[in-house]
Amino acid sequence: MKELKVGIIGATGYGGLELIRFLHNHPEVEKLDLFTSSDEGAIFSSKFGHLLSIHDTALKKIDTETLSNFDVVFTSTPSGVTSKLLPPLVGVGPKLIDLSGDYRIKDLSEYEKWYKKDPAPEEIVNMSVYGLTEWNAKNIKNAKIIANPGCYPTAVLLSILPLIKERLIDPQFLIIDAKSGVSGAGNKPSQTTHYSEMNENFSIYKMNEHQHIPEIEQAIAMFADAKTTITFNTHLVPMTRGILATSYAPVTPGVTEEQLYNCLKETYKNHPFVRVVENVNSLGTNRVKGSNFCDICIKLDERTNRATIVGVIDNLVKGAAGQAIQNMNVQFNLPETMGLDVVPLFI
Amino acid sequence: MKELKVGIIGATGYGGLELIRFLHNHPEVEKLDLFTSSDEGAIFSSKFGHLLSIHDTALKKIDTETLSNFDVVFTSTPSGVTSKLLPPLVGVGPKLIDLSGDYRIKDLSEYEKWYKKDPAPEEIVNMSVYGLTEWNAKNIKNAKIIANPGCYPTAVLLSILPLIKERLIDPQFLIIDAKSGVSGAGNKPSQTTHYSEMNENFSIYKMNEHQHIPEIEQAIAMFADAKTTITFNTHLVPMTRGILATSYAPVTPGVTEEQLYNCLKETYKNHPFVRVVENVNSLGTNRVKGSNFCDICIKLDERTNRATIVGVIDNLVKGAAGQAIQNMNVQFNLPETMGLDVVPLFI
Amino acid sequence: MKELKVGIIGATGYGGLELIRFLHNHPEVEKLDLFTSSDEGAIFSSKFGHLLSIHDTALKKIDTETLSNFDVVFTSTPSGVTSKLLPPLVGVGPKLIDLSGDYRIKDLSEYEKWYKKDPAPEEIVNMSVYGLTEWNAKNIKNAKIIANPGCYPTAVLLSILPLIKERLIDPQFLIIDAKSGVSGAGNKPSQTTHYSEMNENFSIYKMNEHQHIPEIEQAIAMFADAKTTITFNTHLVPMTRGILATSYAPVTPGVTEEQLYNCLKETYKNHPFVRVVENVNSLGTNRVKGSNFCDICIKLDERTNRATIVGVIDNLVKGAAGQAIQNMNVQFNLPETMGLDVVPLFI
Amino acid sequence: MKELKVGIIGATGYGGLELIRFLHNHPEVEKLDLFTSSDEGAIFSSKFGHLLSIHDTALKKIDTETLSNFDVVFTSTPSGVTSKLLPPLVGVGPKLIDLSGDYRIKDLSEYEKWYKKDPAPEEIVNMSVYGLTEWNAKNIKNAKIIANPGCYPTAVLLSILPLIKERLIDPQFLIIDAKSGVSGAGNKPSQTTHYSEMNENFSIYKMNEHQHIPEIEQAIAMFADAKTTITFNTHLVPMTRGILATSYAPVTPGVTEEQLYNCLKETYKNHPFVRVVENVNSLGTNRVKGSNFCDICIKLDERTNRATIVGVIDNLVKGAAGQAIQNMNVQFNLPETMGLDVVPLFI
Repeated sequence: MKELKVGIIGATGYGGLELIRFLHNHPEVEKLDLFTSSDEGAIFSSKFGHLLSIHDTALKKIDTETLSNFDVVFTSTPSGVTSKLLPPLVGVGPKLIDLSGDYRIKDLSEYEKWYKKDPAPEEIVNMSVYGLTEWNAKNIKNAKIIANPGCYPTAVLLSILPLIKERLIDPQFLIIDAKSGVSGAGNKPSQTTHYSEMNENFSIYKMNEHQHIPEIEQAIAMFADAKTTITFNTHLVPMTRGILATSYAPVTPGVTEEQLYNCLKETYKNHPFVRVVENVNSLGTNRVKGSNFCDICIKLDERTNRATIVGVIDNLVKGAAGQAIQNMNVQFNLPETMGLDVVPLFI
Repeated sequence: MKELKVGIIGATGYGGLELIRFLHNHPEVEKLDLFTSSDEGAIFSSKFGHLLSIHDTALKKIDTETLSNFDVVFTSTPSGVTSKLLPPLVGVGPKLIDLSGDYRIKDLSEYEKWYKKDPAPEEIVNMSVYGLTEWNAKNIKNAKIIANPGCYPTAVLLSILPLIKERLIDPQFLIIDAKSGVSGAGNKPSQTTHYSEMNENFSIYKMNEHQHIPEIEQAIAMFADAKTTITFNTHLVPMTRGILATSYAPVTPGVTEEQLYNCLKETYKNHPFVRVVENVNSLGTNRVKGSNFCDICIKLDERTNRATIVGVIDNLVKGAAGQAIQNMNVQFNLPETMGLDVVPLFI
Repeated sequence: MKELKVGIIGATGYGGLELIRFLHNHPEVEKLDLFTSSDEGAIFSSKFGHLLSIHDTALKKIDTETLSNFDVVFTSTPSGVTSKLLPPLVGVGPKLIDLSGDYRIKDLSEYEKWYKKDPAPEEIVNMSVYGLTEWNAKNIKNAKIIANPGCYPTAVLLSILPLIKERLIDPQFLIIDAKSGVSGAGNKPSQTTHYSEMNENFSIYKMNEHQHIPEIEQAIAMFADAKTTITFNTHLVPMTRGILATSYAPVTPGVTEEQLYNCLKETYKNHPFVRVVENVNSLGTNRVKGSNFCDICIKLDERTNRATIVGVIDNLVKGAAGQAIQNMNVQFNLPETMGLDVVPLFI
Repeated sequence: MKELKVGIIGATGYGGLELIRFLHNHPEVEKLDLFTSSDEGAIFSSKFGHLLSIHDTALKKIDTETLSNFDVVFTSTPSGVTSKLLPPLVGVGPKLIDLSGDYRIKDLSEYEKWYKKDPAPEEIVNMSVYGLTEWNAKNIKNAKIIANPGCYPTAVLLSILPLIKERLIDPQFLIIDAKSGVSGAGNKPSQTTHYSEMNENFSIYKMNEHQHIPEIEQAIAMFADAKTTITFNTHLVPMTRGILATSYAPVTPGVTEEQLYNCLKETYKNHPFVRVVENVNSLGTNRVKGSNFCDICIKLDERTNRATIVGVIDNLVKGAAGQAIQNMNVQFNLPETMGLDVVPLFI
């Protein structure tokens, strides 16, 4: 019997649309309603034609009393918006899963520094649990508020945390060079994301200034017990979906490529969405397109004794909506893969 | 209880990969085995990394006895191959659903003329049922062999058949200008489909010579009782998935745009995969990406009294694997949408 | 000795940027200044980094007196803007070449109907000469104002005018199915041209309503002496540059494919930018990318006795800036190809 | 008066096609002939339609006597081919400019190790001069054989050499993460470069094994007098043209971002094709598309005291044909920019 009543605030963003895509087929979702602060009454499929006959109902007004009857509410609004929008919903009933960056950074001054916005209320940030499912399931299970991880941090952390935790690589000289498809920039038009200027154009952006830097450093401290300042740069790839993060670090003397691989393999042996790939010389984002997988590979360069570690995800799925639903599954004691067990599109 | 044992011959093609993508989540598929004529024993996910942990079993040898124990076998090999490969399987047990063009054209001399290949055995071509689900479900139900429609014909026929059948447009001056993503060209590398030469290049190809012409004309005769020679041209779009077919025809004097729209709407009112779109001035392939939908719209140009009719599909889904599974559902008395009820990706 | 002083109004648009690209290397251009109505003083290369070290001077204020000292001024502002901006410059000195649609349509009521904007002053529209170089050079030579053709009309007219003029095809049943790269939509961001929604999405737009329809019909009347209403539809291709227009028409009984080809070949034998391509079964936009060529091919379908005529251009070059410079060359008695003799990029 | 007789061997490759594109407009090129080992007599424009009316002559047979009358011969054949093809031409007359990797690596055992092919004759490798124009013009001037640099090394070396030479960064912990458009893979179709599998797919390849590694290390030793082993990885971007290389290195204590910037600016102040970009937070390949520019920027991350250095080129131009022609200009005492002074396409 279907049990869950689910609400989405911010359904018109790409994260929100992906939540709908997966929740539509989730066996335990009884009801799926979409909420808006500005566009009440609009028929959702008249805005997004691909949802014709799938979601033809009207957008509902955000209303605490209405939402109190839901089991879980996803907030998929931009950073700086959720910080104001979520607090009234805390404690009124539904589990809250936030896809923005507003509840991830525990140190509010760090949030302000990197996001250049006012932080969310401290007590709510403190209550929130970081939703990196494979590393925090125990806390996620009982969390009332989940701060769903950022897209880049998901690809980076899943690929490097095991190695840092086991001290197989040196986190003090960690260089992370990340590349993302354009959907990561959201659905709001801009000159940068104007088709003619983005197409056939690979670029670096926010050099050393991306707001996911403190999130990655915080998680390294939290899950691998290492304090470090990372070098982290981000690039835009002229494609819609996908993140590939290439990380570089010196390997602890004596450690072999086999040990590095085994560490990853062992860490994720019971985690169906993380696939450690062996013996590859190439790895691409099409392996995971449209799915909740994170594929990882590692190579040790014996000339330099440095490791190259690659993590690949679909930024909208494992990097956003998919992981959010995975966290919902954990919270409601459902199999982690429920509703998410789809085959990547490849092409 | 899951019931169906399903085999795929030709799984390495894009049609085959899409069959796997949908059959993996089909509630009634108990067993899914992949067969090959050349690569027995190879682990499928070592060829297609996106299937790692999803389909790690070995390719099996095509063997009549083995295949006789299956409920349904999809043949997804190129035209000219299935004509030889399928006959030994006829009558040994499984329902046969062929995705190639080899069993579609009833007039073998027409097949030879357009495909420039030897035709399949006449008696088997005669037995085969054209699998345009929305128009031929009754015959599909009891068919032993289904000739699954071509990608272009599916987009074209679903959009124009109702109008021709009701004599609202004149089939004697039918111009069809069709555009396809590159996946329609299959998985075999060539100079034309070499990335650097296909990318940023929109082209017309096979001018007036595409082998889908006789298929469309045959279906117009079969389902709309009209004999005509069509003008049909095909173009390659620098994108992977999607077909958009724009058809032009004079409208029967006195017929209004509303009547044209209503004809389409009425025809498909009980067909969940065909969505007739109202009041649009634009329609694109991203509405249906990754899904089994066919979206249709129509405009009457009052200056010329000609209709513009647009049909949009994902060529690999409704134009191939999706419709094939839809036909399987019909044959086994399952709901047409079973295993195919996915939300289009949009982005 | 370099002789020409050239001004551009509207340099920040894509047409303007292409003017700069070609004029920078034009042997007769002594001076190239950029004018703006809103952004006086801004260093152009700080807005468009690709012009660093190429055009580092400041945008100048639009000023009639200043502009009166120029030999030629290109106006490359949107339709509805040039109608107001150009009149004060008429007669003050420079030749005026307008890339917008504001001076193309002689019948002002038609302009209003299709553009849904107020027309330019009638006397100035009457003075302006339609700049389809290959068909109107004599008038262009002495023109004070040139209405440079639209991108779609250029591809369409060059390919069909010779055949209509010689009555080899029937203009009364002319279906034109045109496809354009996204740069045709200009440089202003919108939801439609947002990368994630345009990418991997082929769409039809402005069904039967494109403002280039009256321009094409007017030119058919003007150059081929035929009155007709055409069917014309436009599609957006997920690529930046290029237009391919596929036209369909019944062929005059008895006319052969050879005659059709020869008519085109003969018409353009002294026109270096129009290349008639023989014996092709495919033709794509990459043949002309970045260049001022228009490539044309024709096929007669003997089954239907209809011709398929294909015209291919780079919409920003032959469809805008290139043809504008070609017209300037004609006006100043320079070789037509001066500054435009570049090899297409192909990839 | 035009003076130079130029031959190209390997014109059908992308490097060769770009040579034609630029040499067609080079003011000093009197004659441009194309040579082939396999396809003598074929009309070049029948193979490459974009060259119709531009290069309609036949491919000539490679013949030492014929070639001895040329002033310069470009060899643009794959590595492993030029090693055999070039030696007979040494000393017979023309300057030789080789675009393959066969004459770059002085240590033949290194060549064998990384290229996995037999090396070219030692004495000819020794004679050859590395054609990184901005760093080696003096030797290039008198060279009989030029080993034109690889695409990745050009982007990397131009951006980091000044900083290493001045000891502003530490070459002992140099991480280079490079990304290239697909044209770098050449014109030969393969599964990897098949449109449907490359499109929308960002991938890493040849992890720690790219043959450009020894070339970069050799040049660092040669021009910056530093011996180091680098970490170097390469990625394929789903676009046709462009390389962006992101390099990371610790900064010498006390060095400021301004010093780093000034070092680059000073180094290249008289080099028109290298543009050092100030105050950017983003830099993309569209800045240089179709042109011979190399754009560079640098940021110092004060948290980590590491520099991020970005070099951007068009891989087919500054990374291949453009730099080759720039070297030809140097050899013949022509201005470096002759024939190469084109404006980047941007879109």
